Amino acid sequence: MQKCGNNKIEMRKITILIHCEDQKAIIASVTNYIASIEGNIIYLDQHVDADENVFFMRLECEFSSQNWDIEIIKNDFQTNLATPFNMYWEIYTQEQKPKMALFVSKYDHCLYDILGRYSAGELPLEIPLIVSNHEDLRSVAKRFEIPFHYVPFTKEIKAQGEQQQMDLLKKYDIDFIVLARYMQIITPNLITLYRNQIINIHHSFLPAFPGAKPYHSAFKRGVKIIGATSHYVTEGLDEGPIIEQDIARVSHSHSIEDFIMKGRYLERSVLARAVKLHAERKTMVYNNKTVVFS
Amino acid sequence: MQKCGNNKIEMRKITILIHCEDQKAIIASVTNYIASIEGNIIYLDQHVDADENVFFMRLECEFSSQNWDIEIIKNDFQTNLATPFNMYWEIYTQEQKPKMALFVSKYDHCLYDILGRYSAGELPLEIPLIVSNHEDLRSVAKRFEIPFHYVPFTKEIKAQGEQQQMDLLKKYDIDFIVLARYMQIITPNLITLYRNQIINIHHSFLPAFPGAKPYHSAFKRGVKIIGATSHYVTEGLDEGPIIEQDIARVSHSHSIEDFIMKGRYLERSVLARAVKLHAERKTMVYNNKTVVFS
Amino acid sequence: MQKCGNNKIEMRKITILIHCEDQKAIIASVTNYIASIEGNIIYLDQHVDADENVFFMRLECEFSSQNWDIEIIKNDFQTNLATPFNMYWEIYTQEQKPKMALFVSKYDHCLYDILGRYSAGELPLEIPLIVSNHEDLRSVAKRFEIPFHYVPFTKEIKAQGEQQQMDLLKKYDIDFIVLARYMQIITPNLITLYRNQIINIHHSFLPAFPGAKPYHSAFKRGVKIIGATSHYVTEGLDEGPIIEQDIARVSHSHSIEDFIMKGRYLERSVLARAVKLHAERKTMVYNNKTVVFS
Amino acid sequence: MQKCGNNKIEMRKITILIHCEDQKAIIASVTNYIASIEGNIIYLDQHVDADENVFFMRLECEFSSQNWDIEIIKNDFQTNLATPFNMYWEIYTQEQKPKMALFVSKYDHCLYDILGRYSAGELPLEIPLIVSNHEDLRSVAKRFEIPFHYVPFTKEIKAQGEQQQMDLLKKYDIDFIVLARYMQIITPNLITLYRNQIINIHHSFLPAFPGAKPYHSAFKRGVKIIGATSHYVTEGLDEGPIIEQDIARVSHSHSIEDFIMKGRYLERSVLARAVKLHAERKTMVYNNKTVVFS
Repeated sequence: MQKCGNNKIEMRKITILIHCEDQKAIIASVTNYIASIEGNIIYLDQHVDADENVFFMRLECEFSSQNWDIEIIKNDFQTNLATPFNMYWEIYTQEQKPKMALFVSKYDHCLYDILGRYSAGELPLEIPLIVSNHEDLRSVAKRFEIPFHYVPFTKEIKAQGEQQQMDLLKKYDIDFIVLARYMQIITPNLITLYRNQIINIHHSFLPAFPGAKPYHSAFKRGVKIIGATSHYVTEGLDEGPIIEQDIARVSHSHSIEDFIMKGRYLERSVLARAVKLHAERKTMVYNNKTVVFS
Repeated sequence: MQKCGNNKIEMRKITILIHCEDQKAIIASVTNYIASIEGNIIYLDQHVDADENVFFMRLECEFSSQNWDIEIIKNDFQTNLATPFNMYWEIYTQEQKPKMALFVSKYDHCLYDILGRYSAGELPLEIPLIVSNHEDLRSVAKRFEIPFHYVPFTKEIKAQGEQQQMDLLKKYDIDFIVLARYMQIITPNLITLYRNQIINIHHSFLPAFPGAKPYHSAFKRGVKIIGATSHYVTEGLDEGPIIEQDIARVSHSHSIEDFIMKGRYLERSVLARAVKLHAERKTMVYNNKTVVFS
Repeated sequence: MQKCGNNKIEMRKITILIHCEDQKAIIASVTNYIASIEGNIIYLDQHVDADENVFFMRLECEFSSQNWDIEIIKNDFQTNLATPFNMYWEIYTQEQKPKMALFVSKYDHCLYDILGRYSAGELPLEIPLIVSNHEDLRSVAKRFEIPFHYVPFTKEIKAQGEQQQMDLLKKYDIDFIVLARYMQIITPNLITLYRNQIINIHHSFLPAFPGAKPYHSAFKRGVKIIGATSHYVTEGLDEGPIIEQDIARVSHSHSIEDFIMKGRYLERSVLARAVKLHAERKTMVYNNKTVVFS
Repeated sequence: MQKCGNNKIEMRKITILIHCEDQKAIIASVTNYIASIEGNIIYLDQHVDADENVFFMRLECEFSSQNWDIEIIKNDFQTNLATPFNMYWEIYTQEQKPKMALFVSKYDHCLYDILGRYSAGELPLEIPLIVSNHEDLRSVAKRFEIPFHYVPFTKEIKAQGEQQQMDLLKKYDIDFIVLARYMQIITPNLITLYRNQIINIHHSFLPAFPGAKPYHSAFKRGVKIIGATSHYVTEGLDEGPIIEQDIARVSHSHSIEDFIMKGRYLERSVLARAVKLHAERKTMVYNNKTVVFS
């Protein structure tokens, strides 16, 4: 490792994600390889899931070489490391911002929050597309000058809705989808196409209160803390890998309306944090759980 | 109201708890009464459960009168307020410390914590009795010089165990019971006898993960936050009115053992806070929920 | 008190704030008065500052009377209660939304956040005016269709800037001012004119790190928790009454840039909560401290 | 790396701490070395202080070799790694529990808490000694059967007190000292002798409210959050490297006594966490800041 300060040479930064069966000498081999191509490791975190015997690693490296070529690195990585260790791996350059589609229905608070953070330059991603099953939030999209597509979606026209969604996602070259209080089921086909690439915000502290009306259930139970959970969407309702959770204190003096209002604060910030973690390639999924290198 | 500083007159302090059907002029009537007997209100909090139409109030008052008589006040209160408003009420003098029995099994961390706080003078209560279905913690009780009674309790000898428990509770004139990780079912008879007077600590963020091994379930689900819940014991397992909850963040890097260790921190402090709130008469129960005037 | 459900009679709701020297029978007198004019108390909270001997109270009442007249109530209140008890008081009807001016400079994250929440209907106030000493954020104001006024403000043209600010505040009939990371000093004249009506967000956990560059100071000190503080503006820099604070955990692994980014999350939510509390008339100021009835 | 499950071979576990100037290939060299001696890395975390250009690493490794010899490993490590990279390093076997001295005065809540956790088996350390400048807590030490030494300490007899302390620390072979609300200055000589090995708990959220009576200052300032800070003791009062901090919410309704009581909860848990982190060799100090690998 070597610190590269404000020198004149332009530095290229890449992020590497790895998981594979746990074996001897993985870290040594990967760090040797980085050293061999003159890279400086500026971040390294690793995790071993002892129950599943799986090894996870995330690295950020800087390269100053002028002849630097990401494709050559990828090829070398595959040959020298991924094949012998039977690794699953991803490599991203800093310039590659993922493209995110926002799915919304009628609630606007998460939409305003994400678009505000996006406009303020806090999210390393692009939002080329907003999809909704209602027309209500078209004006919000317009304010932020983002294309808005109305895609009706009900049980009766599910196949047609799904096709329209898929066409749009393809057309806009979308990498991942964020459900910002989108109130419709995501079809299994779409889940398969975007495996671990669809982020939902559920308005409870999962696994407590899955499904509809969680604030009403929380109020009825008399809990002293409410929560929100952001997770990847899987076939099981509210059962996908959890990315981020947060909580707020409530008391007997709070009405259901207070729960809902406090919950909106939570939903916003939990979703924003999950989106940021995903866009920064800090999450990995295995066995319906996430490894979050934050 | 009137502040009473460091004057020489000895002040008598009482706490009043009230609940009744919500009606006009309750607060005016109660505060008029306190004013009429020369009391100073030093704390007043009230709550209306709009769904159930129930009114709750907690007051702390000071009296300087030398002819002060708590029994006369109680009689007057019954005649002038409780009867016309059909109130449920309790009045305590500051001197009346509730007597608490600790039920334990083999886990010692909550026991050490409560006895430490008790010895440090932080809990306004007396602990005349520790009951256990194992002998393991007798030495801890001995360290703190508190009577320890071994009461075996299994399915086969339930009736006998219950009888022994009841005899002890009666003998030591116990007001309320704290289950400090006591790993046996409380019998319906005991629950009835100590309705809303038995406090349990459950090692999860209820209603998530009720029952056995909640940390294992939380680990398997991949949650990012674990919790602990203190509640009054009812006939439904882990379904009683919640008094206090708290949480701690966990990540993929934590093992089940880490969850359990972090959980022990939570269990301790959540149980201690619940016990303190109860001993200070700051909790009221209605409709399987608590009103906590803190 | 009496619950008024979904009946047909339109209910009028008012909020009453009181503070005065602590005396006997204040609560009884006020609640008697409310009962006498057929009001239902739906919220009552009170506080006695024992050191200063000051009594504070906040009430929300509902009236169903068709002949209801807020001016008569105010007159009666003055005659029957405020004069004899020498009270400071305020009464608001639910319809009176306060008018808020936003002061900004170049940071846009708090501005986006407040305008997003405002547009999502979460803040009970009106925003007729944004004032800035830079042109940078005009486009954000335009997106949300709120008048934006550029008022240059430097040491050299302080008097002129202050005059322009005051003219605008008067023209738009502004009730209170929010400094959403406005990076200029507020003049003593403006502070006097809007005493306890100017809310600032400071990006540290006051009183730690007042003044400029608090995240840099926090980083240098190696703190494990950073914070943000919303307070009323007084003549002393960052010394005004604190309305709301919140914190976030940091570690050695976070850079100054991480501190700043995490801080932006905090600043946003702390400021939003303070603005909401103020707009709901839940704050009272006394002796450079706030009473917050939340 | 390789998982070693419940096999029969006894595993030896060591912890390695390293810091040195940041250079290329440190991680590769260290992990290569571990691989070369058949060690399995079960934990690795590293940090680069970019401002100071310092590299920090913490590893936990397991060895199954029957001919395993810690002294040989230490020698090899020095020759092959520490010398070429000019490293500061420490290696501990799992069996080496550090010996801790508790310094106390009259407050007993932190003492009870630590001794309770210690007795419950939660702290990987030994407590052979309690030192106090008062006799008050001798009975607590006796309950837990730990030697208690009364060492008077005032300005007049500073040299004598210091000598007695040093003699005791030497006699009991003490590795680190915990000031559990010890209310006397630690002498520079002792600080030098136990550099970064003396842990204090300060009852405020440093750097706010250093010095005496922080709860009173916090109350006067009207903060909405109070805190506690555990730090290593240096020559500057309350200015040493921070290990752990935590906070609790307060409101206008809390008196100074409430602040103090809530603060006791904080002090206890913050100190306990700091002690645990230190005993597990998870802390490193550099430039008056801590790196905490937790």
